[in-house]
Amino acid sequence: MDQFVIGVDYGTDSVRSVVVNAKNGEEVSGAVFYYPRWKKGQYCAPALNQFRQHPLDYVEGLEKSIKKALKAAPKGTAAKVIGIAIDTTGSTPVAVNKKGVPLALTPGFEENPNAMFILWKDHTGIREAGEINVHCAKWEEDYLRFEGGIYSSEWFWAKILHTLREDKKIRKAAFSWVEHCDWIPFLLTGGTDVRKMKRSRCAAGHKALWHEDFGGLPPNAFFKALDPLLDGLTERLFKDTYTSDQPAGNLSKEWAEKLGLSTDVVVGVGAFDAHMGAVGGAIEPFYLSKVMGTSTCDMLVAPTESMEGTLVQGICGQVNGSIIPGMTGLEAGQSAFGDVYAWFKNLLSWPLEEVVGKSKLIDKKTKEKLLEEAAGRLIPQLTKAAQKLTPEESGLIALDWLNGRRTPDANQALKGAIFGLNLGTDAPKIFRALVEATCFGARSIVDRFQREGVPIQGVIGLGGVAKKSPFVMQTMADVLNRTIKIARSEQTCALGAAMFAATAAGAYPSVSEAMKAMSSGFDAEYHPNPQNAAVYDDLYRKYVDLGELVEEQDN
Amino acid sequence: MDQFVIGVDYGTDSVRSVVVNAKNGEEVSGAVFYYPRWKKGQYCAPALNQFRQHPLDYVEGLEKSIKKALKAAPKGTAAKVIGIAIDTTGSTPVAVNKKGVPLALTPGFEENPNAMFILWKDHTGIREAGEINVHCAKWEEDYLRFEGGIYSSEWFWAKILHTLREDKKIRKAAFSWVEHCDWIPFLLTGGTDVRKMKRSRCAAGHKALWHEDFGGLPPNAFFKALDPLLDGLTERLFKDTYTSDQPAGNLSKEWAEKLGLSTDVVVGVGAFDAHMGAVGGAIEPFYLSKVMGTSTCDMLVAPTESMEGTLVQGICGQVNGSIIPGMTGLEAGQSAFGDVYAWFKNLLSWPLEEVVGKSKLIDKKTKEKLLEEAAGRLIPQLTKAAQKLTPEESGLIALDWLNGRRTPDANQALKGAIFGLNLGTDAPKIFRALVEATCFGARSIVDRFQREGVPIQGVIGLGGVAKKSPFVMQTMADVLNRTIKIARSEQTCALGAAMFAATAAGAYPSVSEAMKAMSSGFDAEYHPNPQNAAVYDDLYRKYVDLGELVEEQDN
Repeated sequence: MDQFVIGVDYGTDSVRSVVVNAKNGEEVSGAVFYYPRWKKGQYCAPALNQFRQHPLDYVEGLEKSIKKALKAAPKGTAAKVIGIAIDTTGSTPVAVNKKGVPLALTPGFEENPNAMFILWKDHTGIREAGEINVHCAKWEEDYLRFEGGIYSSEWFWAKILHTLREDKKIRKAAFSWVEHCDWIPFLLTGGTDVRKMKRSRCAAGHKALWHEDFGGLPPNAFFKALDPLLDGLTERLFKDTYTSDQPAGNLSKEWAEKLGLSTDVVVGVGAFDAHMGAVGGAIEPFYLSKVMGTSTCDMLVAPTESMEGTLVQGICGQVNGSIIPGMTGLEAGQSAFGDVYAWFKNLLSWPLEEVVGKSKLIDKKTKEKLLEEAAGRLIPQLTKAAQKLTPEESGLIALDWLNGRRTPDANQALKGAIFGLNLGTDAPKIFRALVEATCFGARSIVDRFQREGVPIQGVIGLGGVAKKSPFVMQTMADVLNRTIKIARSEQTCALGAAMFAATAAGAYPSVSEAMKAMSSGFDAEYHPNPQNAAVYDDLYRKYVDLGELVEEQDN
Repeated sequence: MDQFVIGVDYGTDSVRSVVVNAKNGEEVSGAVFYYPRWKKGQYCAPALNQFRQHPLDYVEGLEKSIKKALKAAPKGTAAKVIGIAIDTTGSTPVAVNKKGVPLALTPGFEENPNAMFILWKDHTGIREAGEINVHCAKWEEDYLRFEGGIYSSEWFWAKILHTLREDKKIRKAAFSWVEHCDWIPFLLTGGTDVRKMKRSRCAAGHKALWHEDFGGLPPNAFFKALDPLLDGLTERLFKDTYTSDQPAGNLSKEWAEKLGLSTDVVVGVGAFDAHMGAVGGAIEPFYLSKVMGTSTCDMLVAPTESMEGTLVQGICGQVNGSIIPGMTGLEAGQSAFGDVYAWFKNLLSWPLEEVVGKSKLIDKKTKEKLLEEAAGRLIPQLTKAAQKLTPEESGLIALDWLNGRRTPDANQALKGAIFGLNLGTDAPKIFRALVEATCFGARSIVDRFQREGVPIQGVIGLGGVAKKSPFVMQTMADVLNRTIKIARSEQTCALGAAMFAATAAGAYPSVSEAMKAMSSGFDAEYHPNPQNAAVYDDLYRKYVDLGELVEEQDN
């Protein structure tokens, strides 16, 4: 008899649930739900880098997307579902009460942004992150050694400390703090005691300073010395963590009824989207699995024994079991990738909106159609023109730090730049330079891994840009001077979650076995052009040199 | 009885003749003639930076524009014309025979670009300019000391040497070489012996290494050592030079008949456009007179005695009498000014042409109208939006070297750059940064003059950008922290030529007297906003620092 699993992938704007055949990984059906409050921009202040999401957006999305996906599946599928697993963005923590309920779901906090999930890209804790770095540098034991040496404002403790300082009411009401990927399994399994919540190894290890060598989180003394507001919090957080092949529990009666599923359904321990995505994309040891969308998440797994004594500086952490249990998961990434191209598209759209959009020569309807057509054709047209250029033809070098730099060596204050402009520089040349810049950024991550003793033996491309832009992927292959394999699945995160669900439910003895059986493999390969690769070797040196100059200038 | 003079201003694309009342400077009539061969792109190769102009374009333009201007003047005006003076671009030399006829007007050379005028912006002699600089550095006497220390590929000797090396036929047929501004008066006065041609002090001093202290041009030994091809040429060039208050001679019978003027009409010695433009714009001692168009020419006059012992490094030369006889004329400038804004407009026009222009949603006629409308509205709309920003709001710093850097310290290999880009950077922000960059470039010229001991006591704005863009002019006032007066005349070069014509014809004892009587004064003033000026002080430091980094990186 066929068995099915459900993978739930919470992204920044929407949640997607897919129903997958546990035997072969075939996607049976799927459904997407866009967060309604988020879509309206509620609880956010982009000028302050404040991005919050209401727990109700998640809860409604959970129920609706799963029900819709099951409805779209062949009759009888629901009865054959054996497991559910969840991935989310992160670090996306929320303040909860003793029962593990996000404060925004408790009376008096319904409209308080500080009682909601603090989305990964919220940078309100930038000052606190700086303080944590200073504090760590002074402390006897180096608690940042598994985190690449730098704590980010995007992470757990910076967000907690900032919120506790900002909001007295939260300070009083918050019993503990919980990651989005930990709360959803807790919710589905009917958890009522936050102390019993099974915390994700991935989230805890990469964002909360948890490590086996520390025996859990750093001690209370460390946090108390950082700020007395944190005194006693570690005790109300967690000591143990769980890899995502483990069950968080069974579906609660309430949720089983809501979703039309059995209480036999096993709910797996959650993890971050890029981590499960790497598994969905058939990651292999020492293969860099690059999820390329608006930004990139670069994931790598290495047998834990091979990593002994190796600490990679300037990345987003290395955690035993964070991607695949039994291996060390390493995370890196670029703060802007597809966002860089989107930025240039927006820049070029200015005259379309400001001049054509306000023209009296054409009627409103034609105008709208024209702008819509332009919006769709701009990147394809730029790509077509940029593809005709040779690597050196633009004469330009760009720095891709338009959203700061995540890795190597996090520095969110950095900015982008374009060098080499002359009166003959046109839009396709700049577009090509920007694409090259994002690939140079990718190369600097590869270089860092290699320099720190982690060999990169292959590259796997996942995500929107990897699937949609052969031009970007060919440039990436040329700049990295490596072959890039593109995962076939359009939904590697949800597929990865389904693999974890199948493992947690016992269909496979390990995630590696689930991957073997359920992977959909690769559907494209990009091979480096040796001539271009040689040119890019030189241009990459210039990128590095110019980047160093700009960074020094900023200091 | 009223007396009239004609000012003839040869620009890059056209020649303009104006008929002016010699008494009060009132413009009676004017006419423009576009060079027909140039307009078709003949004899040019932009990819090679080869820009040539056929002498027939100049000759036809001379006759047609003067006749048309006279025709538009009140009846009887022609009989009251007492003088003509000419300004041209430069250095724009041509190879001539013994009789002073440009080789392109002699049999067998009609279609040879090397036998035509080598336009100021022709950079085919870039290698030769480099050799001249190396040669000068090795020579005992420093012949570059009055030229700002660097010889440019835009100048006389680089162009001659390059052409002699390139073209055997020219080498054989060229008796001498002549600047455009020297040839037109020679033509009008019926000259037939190039040795008797009255050479312009302005052209010779700023571009040909002529100086009183050298007793003329550098010696033959100097040029022979540079390249034997130059052996003996100085003797066939000139020893003496003339300021433009001097007559070149009387109108020849042939040209008097052609134009319907008397042979009593005095033709003045020619000069470069920006030099006569500065006079037309009522330049004063220690006032920087900025002709702001696609590029800028920054002219300054100082009493010659005050300049004794002062040598300004990195500008385009200092020559006694080059602007106003009896004063030292100093020249500087930026290689791209309005061209920088035009570049950004072109960049933003890409989607208009490539996407809207190729759309099937609107018919061809509407498309053309829409693109035309957009072309006209882009800069005004950008200006409107950029004006609303405060000086620091863009977070950007740009380098304005999109066409290299003319001064201070000529370096045509430099390129433009934009720093500080983030995902919120939009078109108005970049436009503002580019405007600021061109003003920072202007400030670096002012700073150089001051640092080298030439105080700048005021700034006068002339030319297209000065007249048309209050936004650019206000930014300039803020960045320079100085008041800028804008000359009233739309045609300061032609008006300046008319002042010289009146002086050469004896209507005034000196150019200064002509200026007093004929100037049309100023019609606008921009005063610095002290708050903005303080902010720009800081941003200018950053511009200088980033510029130094980029320049070092290039070396």
